[in-house]
Amino acid sequence: IGKVEEIEFVATYDVDASKIGKTAYDVAKMYYNDVPTSLSKITVRKGVHLNSLRGMPIKAEGLDDELSLEECVNKLLKEWEELKPDVVVNICTTEQFKPFNDVKELKRAITNDEKNRVTATQLYAYTAILYSGTNEPLAFINGIPTAIANDKAFIELAKENSTVILGDDGATGATPLTADILEHLAERNRKVRSIAQFNIGGNMDFLALTDLGRNESKAFTKSRIVEDILGYDVPHYIRPTGYLKPLGDRKFVAMHIEYESFNGAVDELYIIMRINDSPAMAGMLVDLIRLAKIALERKEYGTVYPVNAFYMKNPGPPGRKCVSKIIAYQMLLEWLDKYLETKKSLF
Amino acid sequence: IGKVEEIEFVATYDVDASKIGKTAYDVAKMYYNDVPTSLSKITVRKGVHLNSLRGMPIKAEGLDDELSLEECVNKLLKEWEELKPDVVVNICTTEQFKPFNDVKELKRAITNDEKNRVTATQLYAYTAILYSGTNEPLAFINGIPTAIANDKAFIELAKENSTVILGDDGATGATPLTADILEHLAERNRKVRSIAQFNIGGNMDFLALTDLGRNESKAFTKSRIVEDILGYDVPHYIRPTGYLKPLGDRKFVAMHIEYESFNGAVDELYIIMRINDSPAMAGMLVDLIRLAKIALERKEYGTVYPVNAFYMKNPGPPGRKCVSKIIAYQMLLEWLDKYLETKKSLF
Amino acid sequence: IGKVEEIEFVATYDVDASKIGKTAYDVAKMYYNDVPTSLSKITVRKGVHLNSLRGMPIKAEGLDDELSLEECVNKLLKEWEELKPDVVVNICTTEQFKPFNDVKELKRAITNDEKNRVTATQLYAYTAILYSGTNEPLAFINGIPTAIANDKAFIELAKENSTVILGDDGATGATPLTADILEHLAERNRKVRSIAQFNIGGNMDFLALTDLGRNESKAFTKSRIVEDILGYDVPHYIRPTGYLKPLGDRKFVAMHIEYESFNGAVDELYIIMRINDSPAMAGMLVDLIRLAKIALERKEYGTVYPVNAFYMKNPGPPGRKCVSKIIAYQMLLEWLDKYLETKKSLF
Amino acid sequence: IGKVEEIEFVATYDVDASKIGKTAYDVAKMYYNDVPTSLSKITVRKGVHLNSLRGMPIKAEGLDDELSLEECVNKLLKEWEELKPDVVVNICTTEQFKPFNDVKELKRAITNDEKNRVTATQLYAYTAILYSGTNEPLAFINGIPTAIANDKAFIELAKENSTVILGDDGATGATPLTADILEHLAERNRKVRSIAQFNIGGNMDFLALTDLGRNESKAFTKSRIVEDILGYDVPHYIRPTGYLKPLGDRKFVAMHIEYESFNGAVDELYIIMRINDSPAMAGMLVDLIRLAKIALERKEYGTVYPVNAFYMKNPGPPGRKCVSKIIAYQMLLEWLDKYLETKKSLF
Repeated sequence: IGKVEEIEFVATYDVDASKIGKTAYDVAKMYYNDVPTSLSKITVRKGVHLNSLRGMPIKAEGLDDELSLEECVNKLLKEWEELKPDVVVNICTTEQFKPFNDVKELKRAITNDEKNRVTATQLYAYTAILYSGTNEPLAFINGIPTAIANDKAFIELAKENSTVILGDDGATGATPLTADILEHLAERNRKVRSIAQFNIGGNMDFLALTDLGRNESKAFTKSRIVEDILGYDVPHYIRPTGYLKPLGDRKFVAMHIEYESFNGAVDELYIIMRINDSPAMAGMLVDLIRLAKIALERKEYGTVYPVNAFYMKNPGPPGRKCVSKIIAYQMLLEWLDKYLETKKSLF
Repeated sequence: IGKVEEIEFVATYDVDASKIGKTAYDVAKMYYNDVPTSLSKITVRKGVHLNSLRGMPIKAEGLDDELSLEECVNKLLKEWEELKPDVVVNICTTEQFKPFNDVKELKRAITNDEKNRVTATQLYAYTAILYSGTNEPLAFINGIPTAIANDKAFIELAKENSTVILGDDGATGATPLTADILEHLAERNRKVRSIAQFNIGGNMDFLALTDLGRNESKAFTKSRIVEDILGYDVPHYIRPTGYLKPLGDRKFVAMHIEYESFNGAVDELYIIMRINDSPAMAGMLVDLIRLAKIALERKEYGTVYPVNAFYMKNPGPPGRKCVSKIIAYQMLLEWLDKYLETKKSLF
Repeated sequence: IGKVEEIEFVATYDVDASKIGKTAYDVAKMYYNDVPTSLSKITVRKGVHLNSLRGMPIKAEGLDDELSLEECVNKLLKEWEELKPDVVVNICTTEQFKPFNDVKELKRAITNDEKNRVTATQLYAYTAILYSGTNEPLAFINGIPTAIANDKAFIELAKENSTVILGDDGATGATPLTADILEHLAERNRKVRSIAQFNIGGNMDFLALTDLGRNESKAFTKSRIVEDILGYDVPHYIRPTGYLKPLGDRKFVAMHIEYESFNGAVDELYIIMRINDSPAMAGMLVDLIRLAKIALERKEYGTVYPVNAFYMKNPGPPGRKCVSKIIAYQMLLEWLDKYLETKKSLF
Repeated sequence: IGKVEEIEFVATYDVDASKIGKTAYDVAKMYYNDVPTSLSKITVRKGVHLNSLRGMPIKAEGLDDELSLEECVNKLLKEWEELKPDVVVNICTTEQFKPFNDVKELKRAITNDEKNRVTATQLYAYTAILYSGTNEPLAFINGIPTAIANDKAFIELAKENSTVILGDDGATGATPLTADILEHLAERNRKVRSIAQFNIGGNMDFLALTDLGRNESKAFTKSRIVEDILGYDVPHYIRPTGYLKPLGDRKFVAMHIEYESFNGAVDELYIIMRINDSPAMAGMLVDLIRLAKIALERKEYGTVYPVNAFYMKNPGPPGRKCVSKIIAYQMLLEWLDKYLETKKSLF
């Protein structure tokens, strides 16, 4: 597996008007003290927003302000042909979205410039696929809830165009731990009665999630684990709950699980977490980028369930279940082992 | 002070079609095992709903289905003239409401039959005041967020008509404890940075509070304590958060308070509560009924701040601050002492 | 696998003078309402205590009060030869103990009647092995911390005498969950900084654990998971903390784990549990009894790591590591699969 | 009241060999970054240890290594006559101690050089009283559990010698909050069933408290509030629980309170705290020093209950009860008001 140091960062896109045109170094300096000076060589490029920042206290500016969807795609394609990326990572703000599941419908929406139908994530993913088809194979990592690895249209196109797609919705925070705890209870035959999981934080993502449409996208990927792991549905409340600025990037999670033990005895579990959101996501992306590169080497086009199952809240492809993270990790190791054996056999 | 056993229960009103006409005994049996048989003498009467159950999975039936507001008032008055109550307790479902603050406007809304302007609580309070004016002095206890003890119109009318009003919003649950914890921190000069308080439960009240308008009413009375007690506002999220049926009447509360200690050190406090909602309210009402009787004896018409300060989340009259509950309790004892001394001096 | 209903309960031993001679039905009635009347056929027999109840508010009475160790063994053997058990379950009070690890030393201690050297558990295990050697193969399940499946002397004798030993220390409560949480963190490369786990309860086991010697036995098996799963040691405090009678059988566990996330960010995890101790143990024993029977059928004499790894805090044989419970469960399923396949191939 | 800035720091004593002789600046620098340079004028003097550091991983060095108790007292007296302090603050490590309660016995122990009978705190307090008798009135603040404000011998001597004594055991941490929560429950007629409070930290104080004798001293002052505030005793476990170095000065407290609400319903309260120990103590000492000065001005010799009641876990004089902190704060304000009025009336 490639080392962390081998990852080369070649470009970044944003739609926050106050960041576009600045160096990545200057932007990182707004949040962290120790920033590698190498980042001063990267200038923040203008991306597409497609109303994804609607309602946010951010002045959004995007290619789509002046260009049609097709023009946006072509503009990005031209830039990427110069940048020659292996991996494109999408971690824009949680969007309200509708999956396509039909290639024709997706293409039509782009051609017809349906800016209210296509989200930023969908446009980036589409561009990544076009790039793969006409240039080198490319991996697209989708860190947010918008269905890409779970959208049949994108999966089909990715297979045809030698694209690797990893997604959807990076499993940081309380959800992966909840998955393992539910597995833990299921293995002991505990009958879960109810699950409440509150999340509150002070970063932009929590502010965005006060928007009801976005919140629903997130609540869906967060609660998929319940039925998939337990094998039955349980009344649950699992969703981003609010925005509280002073908490900053270190969110507060409170959880309650009530379950029946042997012979009907009722046990209770309360979990409180303070989690730094961005570092958790960053560490995961570093892993995913290196795994995406392996998938490219192995030509596993479409999407890669053993990677998604461990790293994603809503692992694609559609039809595959969520499993607990500890089990997913075993699957991931097995997937890697096969790779390492393949590699060895080459020598 | 009167003993618990001296409280005589003479009537109950409901708008749940499945309860009207049944005996109080039969209704209580749906929730509890040990129910005094004396309750079988009380039949549940039909009250007014005025859309207060909008959106709830309950078939509502009210006098207002067929009568005008004035006719409702007169119907209730006639019943009360027979029942001769000393105290009327209002604990209907949390309503979305707009205070009147102006006697004329209140009277006009009743006369003009403005069923979308007047809530059930406002109608009951108005009826109680009319009753006091024409019969014996009466006390009206408002256990829900609708402003009555905080509405100048009702206070003014209560003073003129020899009515005692206690309200608003019975302080059960996490809010009174939060008040005392904030006082505790304020007395130590801790600078509170943020407060998050989540509440989830499985009773009808939580189901009602998933309605946004009602939720706002509740969030207001719940969070009033912050600025009143600390002396400055603090970013906070304090509100009913969701409905989770299996939790039943025993709600789950999770709270996080972050504050600065001496010399800038940051401390944190996490509180989890499991509270039985109905018994907490019931115990409080038993107290309030007995205190209301004392207020009647002392002719303290209008509203009684020293009682409200301890028992209510939004203590009237308007203009009076929330204080911590432990301090309010000292005020309440002082108020009672004066009463007991008055009583003694009569002999 | 045998069904729960197929387990036949043939005898029970105790050293609480107030229970010996009563029926199992009468004893169970002291704790539970619904007790199967079939239990009235079983009379509580007198076991050995060997000072295991020292310091407890229980009048202890044992065969060893009047008999030598060898006589105790023979008395039990004679009883078992009549009872013909397949499985013997040991869940006596946590003892202070010293492992033997040497067959000769163990035999010598029995022969020399060293009542201060041999604990009740060691004597029962020894008896079970003797029984297997001279009668039918027998399984001995050790639910408490005393090393049996981790004592080379017992393992060696068990292999020679066709005994199955499962142990040590049934993994109920907070420890198995802690194991899975540590695995969860390890898989994400979180660097754990400290672990605090408090346990308090109101049953006899907690009272026994206020004794320092016993507490050390328990603290050892509870904290073994840390280094085994993380791969490095971490400052930790994991042990039974106190006795609080009103908590009864539903213990209170509080845990704090602090760890470094990506790039040095510090996250925190707080866990609170209310767990009914006895039902958790009972459910586990029902599983273990059925698995022990399978091990007997397969002639897996000595001890069975794949079973111990999931069910025990200190899984034998010595030298084998603790693994997380979710991984142990996969091992257990694999072990069972092989069994089921063997079974199938017989037809 | 004097301002914080008016407090002048004239000397400090220690028995840690690695600190004696260094400047206060250098010692403070070991723990904090921003240290006022004025501290470099203060050199750490050698105090008495009297075995108070027994079992601690600190090389202790004290005047008592070479001097008799009386010589120690005289040495300190001579130094203080030069330093002319108004207030002496004692915050040495928690000691195992036996109160004197009899002036003669106290004097005899000093005269007879009973180094195993007299603790460091007792010797410092005795010296402070002697100083007051022969020089200016002095205040002695006892921040640790050793009974001084609760020892009749010291109180009697303090009155005779114009000494103000404030004590015992500074109420930082979880205990004062527990006091207010118990008051909160008592005022609502909740019947508390059990209280568990665990404390664990990584500073020297927690290390010292792993010593059983010291732990008992602390458990006593921590749990006195239960019966004093509730009016009845409740099974409780309230004590320092362990030492976990990585937690450092920011201790972890976990608490569980179970109580009966109205009509027998059982509610539960779980509290988790992360508290920075030293800043909490420092802030309190700044208050106490200023209040001690006021007490001196008012000639309130002996001990001052209204100050102790708010700031101390075990408020002297003996015979006075603990009250909740919020009520104690009202008493403190009243005490201050009288003072401020006295002051005003002088003009």
